[in-house]
Amino acid sequence: MLKSPAKHSREKAKTLLLQLQEKICEGLENSDGKGKFQEESWDREEGGGGRSRVMKNGSIFEQAGVNFSEVQGKSLPQSIISQRPEAKGHEWFATGTSMVLHPKNPFIPTVHLNYRYFEAGPVWWFGGGADLTPYYPYLSDVRHFHREHQNACEKVHKDIHKVFKPWCDEYFFLKHRNESRGIGGIFYDYQDGSGNIYKGNKENSKAYQASKNIGAINLSWDNLFSLAENCGEAFLSSYQPIIEKRAKQEFTEKEREFQLYRRGRYVEFNLVWDRGTIFGLQTNGRTESILMSLPPLARWEYGFKAKEGSREDFLTSIFTKAQDWENDKNLEKFCLENNIFD
Amino acid sequence: MLKSPAKHSREKAKTLLLQLQEKICEGLENSDGKGKFQEESWDREEGGGGRSRVMKNGSIFEQAGVNFSEVQGKSLPQSIISQRPEAKGHEWFATGTSMVLHPKNPFIPTVHLNYRYFEAGPVWWFGGGADLTPYYPYLSDVRHFHREHQNACEKVHKDIHKVFKPWCDEYFFLKHRNESRGIGGIFYDYQDGSGNIYKGNKENSKAYQASKNIGAINLSWDNLFSLAENCGEAFLSSYQPIIEKRAKQEFTEKEREFQLYRRGRYVEFNLVWDRGTIFGLQTNGRTESILMSLPPLARWEYGFKAKEGSREDFLTSIFTKAQDWENDKNLEKFCLENNIFD
Repeated sequence: MLKSPAKHSREKAKTLLLQLQEKICEGLENSDGKGKFQEESWDREEGGGGRSRVMKNGSIFEQAGVNFSEVQGKSLPQSIISQRPEAKGHEWFATGTSMVLHPKNPFIPTVHLNYRYFEAGPVWWFGGGADLTPYYPYLSDVRHFHREHQNACEKVHKDIHKVFKPWCDEYFFLKHRNESRGIGGIFYDYQDGSGNIYKGNKENSKAYQASKNIGAINLSWDNLFSLAENCGEAFLSSYQPIIEKRAKQEFTEKEREFQLYRRGRYVEFNLVWDRGTIFGLQTNGRTESILMSLPPLARWEYGFKAKEGSREDFLTSIFTKAQDWENDKNLEKFCLENNIFD
Repeated sequence: MLKSPAKHSREKAKTLLLQLQEKICEGLENSDGKGKFQEESWDREEGGGGRSRVMKNGSIFEQAGVNFSEVQGKSLPQSIISQRPEAKGHEWFATGTSMVLHPKNPFIPTVHLNYRYFEAGPVWWFGGGADLTPYYPYLSDVRHFHREHQNACEKVHKDIHKVFKPWCDEYFFLKHRNESRGIGGIFYDYQDGSGNIYKGNKENSKAYQASKNIGAINLSWDNLFSLAENCGEAFLSSYQPIIEKRAKQEFTEKEREFQLYRRGRYVEFNLVWDRGTIFGLQTNGRTESILMSLPPLARWEYGFKAKEGSREDFLTSIFTKAQDWENDKNLEKFCLENNIFD
């Protein structure tokens, strides 16, 4: 049975996500020290609009985009109806805040965040998450990013992170490369508080297995609202310490070239696999805001292979595979031995 | 009724397309003067394989990729079955040669070519085409490219170019940008010699209108083989004179930046809209060869707008819209007045 949303649900979600954009931009300007966000507000013909904020050529961020939108439409695209058949034939409402940061220094990871809320006729759901894409990863950074998000999830329910972590690994996956986009984080979608919290593809899914082991979890609209609130707030504390630590590290032209090459993978994921991007382009969204996630500069190189045992090789052999970053002792040992722990 | 293919159809098509790769690579090495193609042969687990040739850092070509493949599979992806329902449940065979050239000099256009042949149970078809993507176009170059391809088509049938030219405009179109990829060329697909030669989306299609006006065209397997042969051969004569003319033109850093920015659009088209790319990734193709089409370097810039009336503005206001390049007198006058005719 479908649960009812909270009173003034749209307004509440919208306010939360606007405030999230506000707080993140403030935090990022502080971290950057030099760059400022430029704001553009826009309307959508079919209904609604948004507020895009972009920082270009900061001291830390080559490009940072934080976008808020609140849009309405007559009918959802088929890709969503197939997941939520009850939404068919109903007008829809969607609000979301999404962010992608492309730092200049290859030792600072690229990072993505998105929290969103949908309503369509009798159905509503929350979705969201954050994931980190390092070029030259350090295990301490990876663990820190995951711990902060795990804590944020556990404030709402002790078990949900066990599903949202592998779901993230499975969602941000480039099938055509057999690689994860990065070291993961959390991902959830279609959360309406009913039944199993995992709503993804069941085949070979660790997230599905985890959700089956846990069983049904009852979450109210307010719980899911808090989840978005907690996780959204966890972002700055998960990422700012990494900036502080890595911004001091000098990098070579070769490391920069590798970063640009790996940014190509980011483009490939966003344009080929990312549902959010496809949803935006299918629903006649604002292209410039949707594609704000693409890097300011990216490189492709036919047949590139990193030297075995090199720092660049570690990225694909270890850090673009789903791992138990916290508890895998072999991984820890490897990172310690190779000076990529701390 | 389905027509029969020629005897030894697979072998004939394969040989043609291998020779095409050969001739093109030879011609491009001549044009470049410095760069040489590196070859890699590869096998595909499900059956078949290919021969990829890439030139990097030539004097003209920043990157040039010419790929031949001949592959078999158990069942075609749904995207093709919906167009060719008779192919369902049959093993398939496909052979193709595709090419994308990314010159360094922004005055030399990027160009793409692909000719391919499919068989699946009782059905077979040819597809192919070539299209030009200039950054700083000249009308004489645009006309030359089109004329050469028009001549190649007309050797087979006087009317088919009237369909293949608008079909190209419609296929190489970025809906999310409301822009053509470039100035077009020719495009055709699912050619089995039966009925109307246009097999694309009918809605708002000029190519569909043209094919209706012309009526059914009967082409044999041999005719369609000749079409691929003629058009494939037309490529070098359509493009080499443009290289010769433009390679001498010096370019500024600003022009280079604009080229990199526009290359971002090339990436967007290939990853979001191109059926060939999607087919390759869906059928577990060789990723490095498929994505050889992506540029060695590309840029994105949120909210970029060219200055009104600038050379960069002409690209989007005129040269990424479908035009009658040959006969439009206003266009000719405009190009003459703005020194972008010759």
